[in-house]
Amino acid sequence: MENFTFFNPTKIEFGTGKEQLIGQHLVEHGIKKVLLCYGSERIKREGLFDVVSKSLAEQGIALVEFVEFGGIVSNPVISKVREGIALARAHQVDAILSVGGGSVLDSSKAIAAGVCHDGDVWDLFVGKAAIKSALPVFSILTLAATGSEMNPGAVVTNDETKEKFFIMAAPLFPKVSIVNPALMQGVSRDYLVYSASDVIAHLIEAYFTATVHPKLQSRLVESLINTVIETTETLLADPADYDARAQFAWAATLALNGLTYSGAAGFSYPNHAIEHSLSALFNVPHGAGLSVVVPGWMKWYRDRNPAQFERFARNVFGVDGGEHGIAALEAWFDKIGTPTRLPQLGIKEADLPAIVENVQRNVRIFGIAETYPPEVVTAILKNAL
Amino acid sequence: MENFTFFNPTKIEFGTGKEQLIGQHLVEHGIKKVLLCYGSERIKREGLFDVVSKSLAEQGIALVEFVEFGGIVSNPVISKVREGIALARAHQVDAILSVGGGSVLDSSKAIAAGVCHDGDVWDLFVGKAAIKSALPVFSILTLAATGSEMNPGAVVTNDETKEKFFIMAAPLFPKVSIVNPALMQGVSRDYLVYSASDVIAHLIEAYFTATVHPKLQSRLVESLINTVIETTETLLADPADYDARAQFAWAATLALNGLTYSGAAGFSYPNHAIEHSLSALFNVPHGAGLSVVVPGWMKWYRDRNPAQFERFARNVFGVDGGEHGIAALEAWFDKIGTPTRLPQLGIKEADLPAIVENVQRNVRIFGIAETYPPEVVTAILKNAL
Repeated sequence: MENFTFFNPTKIEFGTGKEQLIGQHLVEHGIKKVLLCYGSERIKREGLFDVVSKSLAEQGIALVEFVEFGGIVSNPVISKVREGIALARAHQVDAILSVGGGSVLDSSKAIAAGVCHDGDVWDLFVGKAAIKSALPVFSILTLAATGSEMNPGAVVTNDETKEKFFIMAAPLFPKVSIVNPALMQGVSRDYLVYSASDVIAHLIEAYFTATVHPKLQSRLVESLINTVIETTETLLADPADYDARAQFAWAATLALNGLTYSGAAGFSYPNHAIEHSLSALFNVPHGAGLSVVVPGWMKWYRDRNPAQFERFARNVFGVDGGEHGIAALEAWFDKIGTPTRLPQLGIKEADLPAIVENVQRNVRIFGIAETYPPEVVTAILKNAL
Repeated sequence: MENFTFFNPTKIEFGTGKEQLIGQHLVEHGIKKVLLCYGSERIKREGLFDVVSKSLAEQGIALVEFVEFGGIVSNPVISKVREGIALARAHQVDAILSVGGGSVLDSSKAIAAGVCHDGDVWDLFVGKAAIKSALPVFSILTLAATGSEMNPGAVVTNDETKEKFFIMAAPLFPKVSIVNPALMQGVSRDYLVYSASDVIAHLIEAYFTATVHPKLQSRLVESLINTVIETTETLLADPADYDARAQFAWAATLALNGLTYSGAAGFSYPNHAIEHSLSALFNVPHGAGLSVVVPGWMKWYRDRNPAQFERFARNVFGVDGGEHGIAALEAWFDKIGTPTRLPQLGIKEADLPAIVENVQRNVRIFGIAETYPPEVVTAILKNAL
């Protein structure tokens, strides 16, 4: 077991009706005015916007003002983040409130960091400047997938350079994240299965790639994967099953909050490094890209860690042999209806060189360029044709 | 899944050599003078005291002064806590540093709360006063068992009234806890197996008693129990196995840091309520008392939650039938050498009425007096004769 530091100061308010507490939490943190970030107008149609604005208004003399900033899209872009920074500065807000899924939250974190950075926000993504401070971030989650609600990371695409990069810094831990599974009941069938793929991808990266991976961590990862598989199937049959929705959501949070990789060493995020190029170039949903990349990567990687692949096969799918575990995962992705082949994303063999070139920037940033030269990335992607 | 709030701001520094960071962490928190609490002189003989005092002295101009407060014993007592409070006040320390196991840490938390309470510290244990603030607590852990390093609770015995009660309040979360498994290598064989029993007891209370217990939480609990069982056996064969010591320690921390009972509802701590009386009256090690109480309680409780006992049998011991799971756990306790019968603790049938009477105070405090009237506690204890 490798040395590690575990620190996660985010307060999670989990369960039905918890969004009504947002005003109270903001007031407790001394917040007077927030930039209220969101995506589509769905939160207005479905009533969440009213609940939130009522909660902000109800704090008596300590009224929390808000400035609306809507229209954040999936695979969020840095140009929109820049708009948000300008608006936050113009209105001198003292916190960012994200109401939405991972894209809205990641944009909110980027805005929070960008407001405190004297220069272009993209500097923070390419390592030209470090994040020393950020406006406090609060969130109300409407889609469980990215784990951003309880970690200090954010991923944003530069829409000019077609780079999908990330930032990570302690000031970006949300102060409070509200996770109400009932707010996720309206998530489309497609986004549910993409989310399942996203969470599983978070769980398998360190599980397979770590040079040191304590058995305790493997057990926790398998507990979470099995929960995701089981609850996804329940939700596909009955989207109104609150308990399945809740376990899915909590598993998604735990999958990327530091718990599962404590004590692991030498791990990396190759599936994310590759997928980010699919999202950046073809604007495919991140989870859909991951369910294509993961089986292809697994087939290429299996011989490098055969014991762990056998363990995965046995403890997740109850089958013997690493290759059968991979086949079972791919079959499960097919069954739930998330893509497993590039053509399902509209990507052809002729597109591979452009993807491979884009991936090279990501693997440098992820620190795994030596293991993933162009010919390796090509081989992995060809597994997914 | 029940609504819950998850919040755990303790920073864990886990691994070899991490105790050298203590001075730096104290300085980062603006601490100038600490009460350094410890148990026996072992920390001086084995060199840990020197490492800590050197770390405190090395912080340049921001030197951290310390006042020694040694001699804290297992099953720590409130009279000693009162001494610590007086010393902390006399020297105007601005933090408490615990160097030791759960007893030292729980005493440190009680001192931290007591210093800020205008009245006798026992008031805080019996609900006569609430804990509104406390001096910040820092810890270097030398025994993994109680989970106190990452939670806001503390258990102390009133040596006059023979009451073993607890306090719990957010200000008692340690700011930083240093968990170096190498410092635990000298733990005696007895205390290793008592610790295993303690951790398992923490894990099974909510697992069996919750009226709502999400399957995800059951999976996490079983992952931790299986880790404790496996690593205890490894450590009994080879106390120098660092990796087993590390996984044991991390499992102990996760067992009582809020993770395993998130989303569970209606659970209680009957085994702790009963065991606290054994410790309070007979000064038996907490873990040794628990390995006696737990199988006796399980036999009495099984029919109230048969499905979960079957699950436990299957997923922890690979056997069918709840009663066989209980027998397997009792046999495992016997195998590792932690007591499973009251006479092994020097307790006879004639002692039962006094224990049962003492337990009644605990079950009131734990809020389970209705379920555990004297005749039920007697029946449970008789299972352990």
